[in-house]
Amino acid sequence: MRILSGMRPTGKLHVGNLVGALETWIKLQEEGHKCFYFVADWHALTTEYNNTDELYENTFDMIKVFLAVGLDPNKSVIFIQSSVKQHAELALLFSMIVPLGWLERVPTYKELKKELVNKDLSNLGFLAYPVLQAADILIYKADYVPVGKDQVYHVELTREIARRFNHLYGEVFPEPQALLSQVPNLPGTDGRKMSKSYGNVIYIDSNIEELRSKVMPMMTDTARKRKTDPGNPERCPVWEYHKAFGTTEEEKEYIKEGCTKAKIGCVECKKILLKHMEEKLSPIWERLAEMKRRESIVYDVINEGTRKAREFAEKTMEEVRRAMNLRF
Amino acid sequence: MRILSGMRPTGKLHVGNLVGALETWIKLQEEGHKCFYFVADWHALTTEYNNTDELYENTFDMIKVFLAVGLDPNKSVIFIQSSVKQHAELALLFSMIVPLGWLERVPTYKELKKELVNKDLSNLGFLAYPVLQAADILIYKADYVPVGKDQVYHVELTREIARRFNHLYGEVFPEPQALLSQVPNLPGTDGRKMSKSYGNVIYIDSNIEELRSKVMPMMTDTARKRKTDPGNPERCPVWEYHKAFGTTEEEKEYIKEGCTKAKIGCVECKKILLKHMEEKLSPIWERLAEMKRRESIVYDVINEGTRKAREFAEKTMEEVRRAMNLRF
Repeated sequence: MRILSGMRPTGKLHVGNLVGALETWIKLQEEGHKCFYFVADWHALTTEYNNTDELYENTFDMIKVFLAVGLDPNKSVIFIQSSVKQHAELALLFSMIVPLGWLERVPTYKELKKELVNKDLSNLGFLAYPVLQAADILIYKADYVPVGKDQVYHVELTREIARRFNHLYGEVFPEPQALLSQVPNLPGTDGRKMSKSYGNVIYIDSNIEELRSKVMPMMTDTARKRKTDPGNPERCPVWEYHKAFGTTEEEKEYIKEGCTKAKIGCVECKKILLKHMEEKLSPIWERLAEMKRRESIVYDVINEGTRKAREFAEKTMEEVRRAMNLRF
Repeated sequence: MRILSGMRPTGKLHVGNLVGALETWIKLQEEGHKCFYFVADWHALTTEYNNTDELYENTFDMIKVFLAVGLDPNKSVIFIQSSVKQHAELALLFSMIVPLGWLERVPTYKELKKELVNKDLSNLGFLAYPVLQAADILIYKADYVPVGKDQVYHVELTREIARRFNHLYGEVFPEPQALLSQVPNLPGTDGRKMSKSYGNVIYIDSNIEELRSKVMPMMTDTARKRKTDPGNPERCPVWEYHKAFGTTEEEKEYIKEGCTKAKIGCVECKKILLKHMEEKLSPIWERLAEMKRRESIVYDVINEGTRKAREFAEKTMEEVRRAMNLRF
């Protein structure tokens, strides 16, 4: 199976991205699928066009995190969207056959416009970005696209575009399927949705002191005011972290019992979590530090990934141009 | 001055295109300006996406006509839009900063939707094509764009996009000006607008028999029913052709006098026109026949023009990417 997924470099990656997406990416890679993973820097412009000062740095840092968490350039094609111009060409060609109505119906279009009131989302690029996304996916003839729930409609739209193209010009594209993440979203440290703007985020690129300063004051079951009150793990954000960060079954049993019967305090529970988070994150931190010392490695990975991605994309575009009779 | 203009390969070129646009292009070329002239095959898709069977042939034939009428590859850069992928990249980047409102206000948008009721114009590409056009123009940093009246708003929009880009990312683009054609539109042989769908067109790629069969039955001043009725050249389509095809001042004097005083018949008047049209068109026909025998020349011109256009476009894109911090 061919897999494609990307992330927008609009800021540092957090542990929610790690357990929600990157670990799925790694799993698919290790299962032996042909994976294409990319930094969607053009997509970042759809909402951040007037804020590109950190675009280069964010893009570079994102590739470093990809590598540090375990994406392997010998197994997966890791690249930067804007380096593969064929995505722009295919998006332009798709724009000719995509009815505006399809785009106006995209649920995230109206939702995000309502949600991000402090952003200017009135531009063509924001309306058109599902078409660029369809080009990202179809240019690699992906079979599966790991996505969150909010992106399922985009994959459906991609299928519709593939169908319309194939109908008009002959069979070129497969119809990709969404691969919905099985992992529930990790909450922020205050129990709300993890979001930079809430300040409730734990970044992957962190260190032990930062981690401790985020984990120890984490919100817990609000009904458990004192150690002597019994708690309910299912209402506690820390419990979600235990599930995501490799706390053993035995430890989870101990915590559940201790919490519900008011035998252990939240501090002890968080210390167990901290140990596991450190176990998972410290090898990542080491690899990030190593890359900081030898950035040329990262550039080599980017160059090699770009070369492979371009080669594949260009082959698809040759088929596309032939099908559309754009043969110059 | 740098000049840019293009034509959509949606069918054969007619004598209206010759006197309305191509002769202006040649004049600008001969005045020593740096001219970029291209076949806008991607633009053809905005209205003809479901009809690409003849796209390749139409594109190739258009280049041949460009050369036959006197565009000189040693003086002008002659190329095909879809071969310079940088246009697609720049259009994508512009899409991020162009408000939808600017596009919905384009006068031709609503007009064409009303006019071309038998075409499907509901696609994203049709709404977005002024952005692609802005990319076509600005990627060559054109100072002047020879256009018809209906395209003036597009050049204005292009200036607005240039200003917005420069404001957001720093000065990269000049603000191009429309160069309005001084030549009035040549009417069709029936006096209506020249249009393939009316069947009132004289193609450039024609021959003397065809030309005669089009000119001799041409509509004249409808008030002049018999040779003995005095006519009014200002109400006669043939008179517009005399002005456009090199009829001498002396001959025009003779015709005006003969027509208004009912001294000459329409047949005589048309024979004079036919002579001048043949004079102008037969060297073009010869060059077209020559190119038919040696098509490799045409391919060489296309390859060389594409190379030059790409080189210029890529230089602009390097500036654009640097300005936007897309530095990979």
